[in-house]
Amino acid sequence: MHPAPQLARRLDSLRSSAIRDLLTVTARADIISLAGGLPDPELVPRARIAAAAVDALGGLSAVQYTETPGWAGLREVLAARNSVQCGRPVGVNEIFTTHGSQQALSLLAQVLIDPGAVVVVENPAYIGALQSFRAVDAKIEALPMDADGLSVDALEELLATGVRPTVVHTVSNFHNPASRSLSTDRRIRLAALAEQFGFWVIEDDPYGEIWFDEPSPRPVAAYSDRVIRLSSASKIIAPALRTGWLQAPEHVCRAVELVRQGADLCGSALTQQIVAELIADDRWLEHHIDGVRAAYRERAEILCAAVDQEFGDVIERTDVTGGMFCWIDFLDGTDTQKLLPLALQAGVAFVPGSAFAVGDGYQNSMRLCFTTSDGPVLEAAVTRLARAHEELALA
Amino acid sequence: MHPAPQLARRLDSLRSSAIRDLLTVTARADIISLAGGLPDPELVPRARIAAAAVDALGGLSAVQYTETPGWAGLREVLAARNSVQCGRPVGVNEIFTTHGSQQALSLLAQVLIDPGAVVVVENPAYIGALQSFRAVDAKIEALPMDADGLSVDALEELLATGVRPTVVHTVSNFHNPASRSLSTDRRIRLAALAEQFGFWVIEDDPYGEIWFDEPSPRPVAAYSDRVIRLSSASKIIAPALRTGWLQAPEHVCRAVELVRQGADLCGSALTQQIVAELIADDRWLEHHIDGVRAAYRERAEILCAAVDQEFGDVIERTDVTGGMFCWIDFLDGTDTQKLLPLALQAGVAFVPGSAFAVGDGYQNSMRLCFTTSDGPVLEAAVTRLARAHEELALA
Repeated sequence: MHPAPQLARRLDSLRSSAIRDLLTVTARADIISLAGGLPDPELVPRARIAAAAVDALGGLSAVQYTETPGWAGLREVLAARNSVQCGRPVGVNEIFTTHGSQQALSLLAQVLIDPGAVVVVENPAYIGALQSFRAVDAKIEALPMDADGLSVDALEELLATGVRPTVVHTVSNFHNPASRSLSTDRRIRLAALAEQFGFWVIEDDPYGEIWFDEPSPRPVAAYSDRVIRLSSASKIIAPALRTGWLQAPEHVCRAVELVRQGADLCGSALTQQIVAELIADDRWLEHHIDGVRAAYRERAEILCAAVDQEFGDVIERTDVTGGMFCWIDFLDGTDTQKLLPLALQAGVAFVPGSAFAVGDGYQNSMRLCFTTSDGPVLEAAVTRLARAHEELALA
Repeated sequence: MHPAPQLARRLDSLRSSAIRDLLTVTARADIISLAGGLPDPELVPRARIAAAAVDALGGLSAVQYTETPGWAGLREVLAARNSVQCGRPVGVNEIFTTHGSQQALSLLAQVLIDPGAVVVVENPAYIGALQSFRAVDAKIEALPMDADGLSVDALEELLATGVRPTVVHTVSNFHNPASRSLSTDRRIRLAALAEQFGFWVIEDDPYGEIWFDEPSPRPVAAYSDRVIRLSSASKIIAPALRTGWLQAPEHVCRAVELVRQGADLCGSALTQQIVAELIADDRWLEHHIDGVRAAYRERAEILCAAVDQEFGDVIERTDVTGGMFCWIDFLDGTDTQKLLPLALQAGVAFVPGSAFAVGDGYQNSMRLCFTTSDGPVLEAAVTRLARAHEELALA
């Protein structure tokens, strides 16, 4: 008489949390983890957040329930910032705040996607998005990426076969896990296709501000209002503030609001007021993000140099120009799922590419995260990785 | 080509937010609102929260992503507190924290309820629960309440007809909106029926600590592990910390965890650490909640006395022994939906009973919230209500 079918179905869908389980293992102190996807907490402006918290708690509104779309003061700040980024006025009613970007994905999936509707994702895929789309029984179509991001040619071919997606999901800047950005030319073509075929683009953009040498191009959302753009304070300020936001046409925001009322009613007025204060302080924020960029750029360079030195022509890796990840393909047939246990023995963790594959694939790939270790630790990690790779070759 | 059906379906289900729209209207300064369901922010310990925030931000973990079930330090404190409340040891793995109790309802609905499964609710119902159950296409069966809470006789009659609910939802203490508590005898019978018939009881208990004269009885969860108990810091500390929690068998918590990964990944380590520090400080917490109890008790007494004086035998009202609400039935046929516009004109807002009805009903009832107004304001509100009632009678 237990409601077993539903519970069992939920427990069956464990694959998506394989990385999470791996992270538990790699919390061991003797393992250097390149497996995470976490920002460096040492770079979080804790004193500034504490001061903003004390300020906010001087008022009554910081402790009360807040509006479901988010505290108005935060939405105003975000609308102004998104207007600059998109090069056109974005209204407050086109901004809806969420409990991190993941909640935006989940709410949008519930609002936009009927069971069986086609959702196009990139392959390798951002796992959090897959989880949200699978939860509403979407039909997933995965398209390849190259150095310029999602293959819009492949999307056009898919559309030519008569497939009509409801949503196309893209991580437009410094893709997780593939560490690539969508070129401006493709952004414009993708937006035009969205208008022509009436699908929504979900532009998932948590990393766009973490560029190293030159600012990220205008978002896809600059080119069409069929684009819903997701951003977050998690990577530029702090994950624990759990403040993400989406920019979308007003009627979409209104539908998201209704779903969120049932999901969790509203966000935290306190953390939203903290984020608003920090984002409104432009000069401070730019200076702060510059520091994050510089730290991550240095780590990325050290990691990439170490990888090149240890592995040379045995691998191909992405040019890391921002974000938090480097994607590596082994050219010698190394199965990264077999490499992982040896790597853990050697004291280093990574995520095998297959964890991000839609279906099979990427057995010879891996994702390395460089954000939470400093230079010498990254170099030691790559040395350990090379040792594990040698051991696998000898096995 | 727009995904209209899904969007339209979401926008159609507007009824549940009627109260929310009403609250927008009643934010006008000239209207005394007895319509809300908000705790008084003046009673929130803002200085203590600020101090705890500063403390927490001394460490790195307060700014990082945290575990999906919640920061371990908070779950330990909650497990200890729930153990005392339930009179048996509750393990840390039986505690799962949520973004307010509403998220617990939403996640549990997704985990436990297949489309078409029967969910028993109380009538009048807690609207947030109805939203979550309807979102997963549950078949709602509403049962009556009396002075001792949910009619367990009516539940037995329903079971005798062969209906097999998956979930029975009850607000066990100081029901919203009906302002009643489930008697101990019925708690024991309900728990026994859950075991006999294999349904889950969702014991929704945000108000249990806001008792006025004597502590609330042992929770239903004390009597069976087929009971999932929901509580929250929103009413005893602050809504904006968005910290709720559920107590459930470990395999249920594990299933909820998987759904939450896709829903929003995790809660805020910062607000969870604040709540943990405040709840761990037993003596301070008891003293603080005593202050909330005393303030609300005084307001409830003043409201009830004013209602009795103005309306006498024209109404019946609940004996308010805790929580945030008084429920009133007009015995003279007053239609409270017709009363509302006149009341707003007179400068007072309430929620008509029909807003809480499953199907039709409660046209002659209303819910009054006494938490956010002091004595003289409550008395003025009831005077205005009486004037509106007279006008309706003359119309």
